[in-house]
Order: sequence, then structure tokens, then C-alpha cells
Amino acid sequence: MNENEFLKKVVPLFKQGNDIVVGPGDDCAVLKINSSNDDEYLLYAVDQVVSDIHYLFNEDDPELVGRKLVKRNVSDIASMGGEPTSAVITAAVNSNFERLEKIYSGIAREAEVWNMSVCGGDYSSVKPRNLEVFTLSILGKVKKEKLCLRANAKAGDLIFATGKFGNSFNSKHHLTFTPRLEQSRFLAGKFTNAMMDVSDGLLMDLKRFAEASKVTASLFTDKIPLRSGTKSLKHALTDGEDYELIFSVRPELECSLIKAWPFKDVELSRIGMVLNHIDGVCLKDYKTNADLLADGHLGFEHPL
Amino acid sequence: MNENEFLKKVVPLFKQGNDIVVGPGDDCAVLKINSSNDDEYLLYAVDQVVSDIHYLFNEDDPELVGRKLVKRNVSDIASMGGEPTSAVITAAVNSNFERLEKIYSGIAREAEVWNMSVCGGDYSSVKPRNLEVFTLSILGKVKKEKLCLRANAKAGDLIFATGKFGNSFNSKHHLTFTPRLEQSRFLAGKFTNAMMDVSDGLLMDLKRFAEASKVTASLFTDKIPLRSGTKSLKHALTDGEDYELIFSVRPELECSLIKAWPFKDVELSRIGMVLNHIDGVCLKDYKTNADLLADGHLGFEHPL
Repeated sequence: MNENEFLKKVVPLFKQGNDIVVGPGDDCAVLKINSSNDDEYLLYAVDQVVSDIHYLFNEDDPELVGRKLVKRNVSDIASMGGEPTSAVITAAVNSNFERLEKIYSGIAREAEVWNMSVCGGDYSSVKPRNLEVFTLSILGKVKKEKLCLRANAKAGDLIFATGKFGNSFNSKHHLTFTPRLEQSRFLAGKFTNAMMDVSDGLLMDLKRFAEASKVTASLFTDKIPLRSGTKSLKHALTDGEDYELIFSVRPELECSLIKAWPFKDVELSRIGMVLNHIDGVCLKDYKTNADLLADGHLGFEHPL
Repeated sequence: MNENEFLKKVVPLFKQGNDIVVGPGDDCAVLKINSSNDDEYLLYAVDQVVSDIHYLFNEDDPELVGRKLVKRNVSDIASMGGEPTSAVITAAVNSNFERLEKIYSGIAREAEVWNMSVCGGDYSSVKPRNLEVFTLSILGKVKKEKLCLRANAKAGDLIFATGKFGNSFNSKHHLTFTPRLEQSRFLAGKFTNAMMDVSDGLLMDLKRFAEASKVTASLFTDKIPLRSGTKSLKHALTDGEDYELIFSVRPELECSLIKAWPFKDVELSRIGMVLNHIDGVCLKDYKTNADLLADGHLGFEHPL
């Protein structure tokens, strides 16, 4: 059993109340704030960084580890078209004060960058030496008309991506990336209402995007921008930890999007298009029509 | 260095925005929901359960482990006078599906008991075998007039406690307790606005209560109700994991509180009173005037 199979088993256990607009399965949960204010929703998510899974205990700069924890979560808020507001953190650790102070300092500085308040937390020891598990739960807000969901892609839309793909872990991009919040502010509600971030691998996350929207995505496999050092297209498609946005755009908005794109340092690429659902195939190569998921290795999955 | 010293160092790193009514240091953070709805606040907290720290991996029922994770957090919401609404969870684990399914089932069932939606989460592997770290971040709501803070105790108030103290871990009370949400509903705003739960030990938590309110607490050490199997007063004062409420009551409300208390199965005890701050002493024995914190061991602190 792997992570995705496990989640398919356990997610249905959790009943969702009437205040939950979108429950498990998107980058954030979407909650009604209260009945009197219907133009805004609350966004709620959580992510973790674990030693020797999400970073190398003996190698990586502890301050960057703390920053990564915040940035992963900001990326989730950006995916939904929202703004981060606050967070609570946990540490379950058996390491030393000097490391932890640097990690917490990284969390604090990165939270300030995004104007978030880290307003609570919990600290625990763990038995194994040199183990660290950090979590950050994040709250954000989103105007109803800016809300972006994985489920909103429509046949005929084009699929765009920010930035480049592949070789994130070895290049340390996964520690140094900038979450695409500015790009989300520019895009959400104006050019797209269907967006997600790529954290587990472009193929795996495009599959989730297509499944959520009940469509087939046709991928322009020769248009995927490779991050420096990426050895092959396969790596760009499956390495993961890219923290780029993928989003769908109605074809009549394509030209104005490309013309208006104001981010000189962030590539904008048209990487595919959305087709009506093709039976059993949710992600295909536009040239060969090959089922891109046939090979089975789609990205990073935690073992179980 | 221990947990409390560590938190004193790192908490000041975190800047709090204008929407944070109460930041780190109480059982929950208190957040303004939005400008248009001032009669209600959002409550936000997080807690964890870690294998062989908060439960015994080889011994304890996995379903109860999941339930404990939820109940610890519900207890934090109860401490503030609020109602739980939703939660997100994480697992960082290296164990097996059968255990995890039972733990998640426990989380789901306990969340239903308290009418909460578990609306998101994150799953990660960890390297060490048989290690489990679960976190649950919780949201709740509280009417402004029901909000209870540690900082609200006033000289002259009496200090009450629900339930009994001591021997929680060996008796498995820490897995089977009922969080005092019903009692909180009865008390908050009517009999008290100064409340917290006892999780780390009665002395340690009373110290936090007194420090937050800038008062000295005089403890009726002969009135502390001992849980069955508790070997001595010292254990009742320092064992922790009681998940009972302590709260202050204005003396003119004492009789009506005792008369109105509707919970036949939950003891109500007057365990102390609040004095004006006595220089350097925040917790003393009412009979001997001895500084109860002089001995140094106040409860459970995670090592660092």
C-alpha cells in the first residue's frame, strides 16, 4: 500500500459539516466564515517537513528548513487564489537547541515575508536521536470570486504552468523556491479559477487536476520547461517539489494573459490543454496519444 | 534546556498581526474573524500525540490513540469557552496500515462526537521503524462574552477544578478521558472568564495561570481530589495529563455555582484562591505559606 491508496481508504471516514465548502482533496479546505459574510471564505491546510525525508539533517541549512515549512503552506494558499493570514506550528524533535533556534528563526522570518502571524504551537520530544518532524497549519482568506479549485478545469481550456520542472531536490530549489503568491494574485479570478501547485510531481499532480475536473489533460511534452540540471523529461515530469502553479485558462484569454504577464523572472508556459474525458485516460501525450500514466511512476509517494 | 525555557526563547521571534487578539501562551490563539462580526472570535490551536511519549506503541489501543489526539484539542477549545468546528491532521509515520486505519477511525469517530469536520491533512513517512507522530490543528468559535483567558483571574477569586488529579498515565485516564466541553458550556461567561485545562501537571499549569494573571494562587493542598491509584499529593500535583478544567470564580458566585452544578459524575472542587501578587511567589500552600514551586518539579516537560 502507498500514500494515495491509504488516503482513498481513510478520507471517506471523515464526515464534513455544512460549513465545509471544499473538504479533503484540494490544496486547502474551504470553509464558510459565517453566515453574514458570504463574499469571503476561510482557507485551511497543513503541511510538514520531516528530517531525511523533506530535507537532509546533516547537510541542509536549518534556517532554510524552517523557511521551507512556511513556503510549502503559502504555496497551498496561493494555489487556491487566497492570502495567508495565520499559522500554528508543531515540533516533535530530538535534536539540539542551536538547530531548533535556527529553524524557528527561519519560520518566523519567512512568515513575516508573507505577512502571516504564527500565533500558536506545540512542542514534543521524540525517542529517536536526530529526528525532527515539523508541521505548520495555515489559515488564509479568499474572495469568493477568486477561489481556484482543482475541479474547475473545463474541456477546451489551455493548461499553463509557472517556472520550471525537475531536479528540485539536488539543486536545493525545494529549500530556496519562492511560493507563487504574487503570480496567484495576478491570475486568480481574472485568468483562472482552476489552479493547483505541483509538489509531488507534474504527472501525479496533473492526474489529480484532471481527475478532480473529470477531464483528460493532453500534455505538450515538448513544451515542459526543464530546471537546470534536469537529466530528462521523465525527471521533469516526476521529480516533484517544484512548487510551481499549474492552471487552466479559457482559450479566449490566452493572448491577454501572455501580454499582461508582468513577471520577467518567472517563465509562463503553455504545457497542455483540457479535453473531454477520454475513457480510462486522464493524461495523454498530445503527439503520440500515449497514456502518460501507463508506466506507473508518476512522482513522489510516501511509502506505507 | 527544557521545553519552557526553549519556548521563552523562540516565542518572541513571532510577530503578531492586528487580527490576533491573543497570541501564543494560552490554550488557543484568539483571532478576529472579520471586521463586520465582532461578537464572535475564531479559536486556533494545535496538539500532537507521539509514540512512546504520549502513548505506548506496543500496548495502547490504536483507536484510543486517535481519540486522544482529538480530545486533547477539544479540551483546549473548552478551556477558552468555545465550540470546536473543524480540524486538519498530519501523520508522520513508519508503521502499518492496520494500525493507521484504527487510529484514523478513532480520529473520525471522536471528531463526530464533538461535531467537528476533519477537512484536510498531510501524510509523510519517517525513517525510524515503529515511530508515529500525529498532529491535529483545531478551529473553534467563541462568543466574545464567553471567552475565557488565563490572564483574567483577579485577586479575591476562588479557584475551582473539575474532576480528579494524578495517576493519569498508568490508569489510562489519558486515553479514556472526556474533554470538559459540556462543563465549559455551563461555566464560560456565566461563572468564569478565566479558565485553562490541566495537561502538564496541576502545579505547572496553575503557575502559568497565576503568571498570566499576574497574581499569586494560594492552593488548598488538602482539597485536591486524587484520582484512584494516586500515591501521594505530589503525584496529583505533578503527574499531568488530567485534562480537567481549572477556573476562577468571583466569591459572590460561589454558592450559585455549587448549587447549579448539574454534572453528577464530575466532581467540582474549590482548590484555592487568588491573591494579589506576592513578590517572587506565584503559587503557595494556604496552610504553611510554603512556596509550592520551590522544589522545582512541577509537572511534565519535554526534554530538549
